[in-house]
Amino acid sequence: MVYLVGAGPGDIELFTLKAVKVLQEADVVLYDALVNPEFTKFCKKECLKINVGKRKGKHLKNQEEINDLLVKYAKEKNIVVRLKGGTPFVFGRGYEEVKALKKIGVTPIIISGVSSTTSVPESFMIPSIDRSFSDSYRTITGHDIELFNEIVTNYHKRENLIIMMGAHKAKEIVNSLLKKGFPKTTPIAYLSKGTTKDQKCLIFTLEEVFKKDEDFFEELKSLTPIITFVGETIKAFEE
Amino acid sequence: MVYLVGAGPGDIELFTLKAVKVLQEADVVLYDALVNPEFTKFCKKECLKINVGKRKGKHLKNQEEINDLLVKYAKEKNIVVRLKGGTPFVFGRGYEEVKALKKIGVTPIIISGVSSTTSVPESFMIPSIDRSFSDSYRTITGHDIELFNEIVTNYHKRENLIIMMGAHKAKEIVNSLLKKGFPKTTPIAYLSKGTTKDQKCLIFTLEEVFKKDEDFFEELKSLTPIITFVGETIKAFEE
Repeated sequence: MVYLVGAGPGDIELFTLKAVKVLQEADVVLYDALVNPEFTKFCKKECLKINVGKRKGKHLKNQEEINDLLVKYAKEKNIVVRLKGGTPFVFGRGYEEVKALKKIGVTPIIISGVSSTTSVPESFMIPSIDRSFSDSYRTITGHDIELFNEIVTNYHKRENLIIMMGAHKAKEIVNSLLKKGFPKTTPIAYLSKGTTKDQKCLIFTLEEVFKKDEDFFEELKSLTPIITFVGETIKAFEE
Repeated sequence: MVYLVGAGPGDIELFTLKAVKVLQEADVVLYDALVNPEFTKFCKKECLKINVGKRKGKHLKNQEEINDLLVKYAKEKNIVVRLKGGTPFVFGRGYEEVKALKKIGVTPIIISGVSSTTSVPESFMIPSIDRSFSDSYRTITGHDIELFNEIVTNYHKRENLIIMMGAHKAKEIVNSLLKKGFPKTTPIAYLSKGTTKDQKCLIFTLEEVFKKDEDFFEELKSLTPIITFVGETIKAFEE
């Protein structure tokens, strides 16, 4: 049996009961860089733990190698856990792993986790949806700026943007939003390492970020993982 | 101490370790209609459990009454848990409760849950983000169709819509999307009671729903809670 399991945003106590249950039974766990390493405390002593972590600029295994490993262990072991940051089907390439497994006749079981997209803003007391501020949010990757431009075509004051993996394109993202007509005064927050003891929140307006120098953008990169949150809702943080 | 706690999408095993920990200590729990009632097994025998459930057309308590109750128990009891479906700050009016508590000098602690917005599609093996299909998703309420029209202005083939509380406006939503230029062949899925044993998934194209009669829309209402998922990603379900 193969399980694709969400490990949540970082805090070990945000693991679900179901995640813990399958980790206790696992013969092998393939885990990502963003997964809290304390998960090993749930595992049997003889459980094989393999770091297949991918981070920008540092690939222990590429996706194809991960798929191959999953397939290999699906054949060899009884209980295989693929442990992923957040939840399996949100920016995790989890579905590619499902497809690789289905090719050998294995349909994995998905165990949802606490998604970083919603829990990280919560850890800073920023509501993604709140009647005072917003009725909608858009979750999008920031690493492909062309696609970002294509999808985010207009501003609505009651919609937030939750941009994942945008730290390396922070400048381009702000330039793009201003060009699209987002008001200069729109709040933007960089939420670093949410739900962990090192969490940090930097709040600006779009115009303030627009005027920043290169040092600022270099420093941002050092704060990854970052979620970039754009929208009026950020004002809740200061209430 | 007051905790706003996410109970996840329905499956009792998708409670987080942290949620269980505070439920074990709780003197009083105020819980919603969509929360799995099995949560009581985590509570002390003497814990007071109050159903403040709100469902369309059936209000046990209105939001103001809930806020008042929270404030009352925050003053009277040691450990107060406000247990909400999904995660506290996504369509839960959690932030209104925070504001009510802050007025009496109490800052509650937020414990994120597994959000229905991402986990319900996962429970049907539909990835919100997957490289083959999509890079973005928009989470929006369907109950205010005017606002929906204002925010959802255009179609992009690599963006999904995840519409909450849209069952009662299913016809208007489909009409709106077709008017906005969404292709007639765009897949639309009604995901009912995701992550529970009664879960059910109905898949159509926008055009097929457009041609449905009133009986269909009446039946949809009976399947709430429903998440309406629109986008090419639904094709993953059939792969």
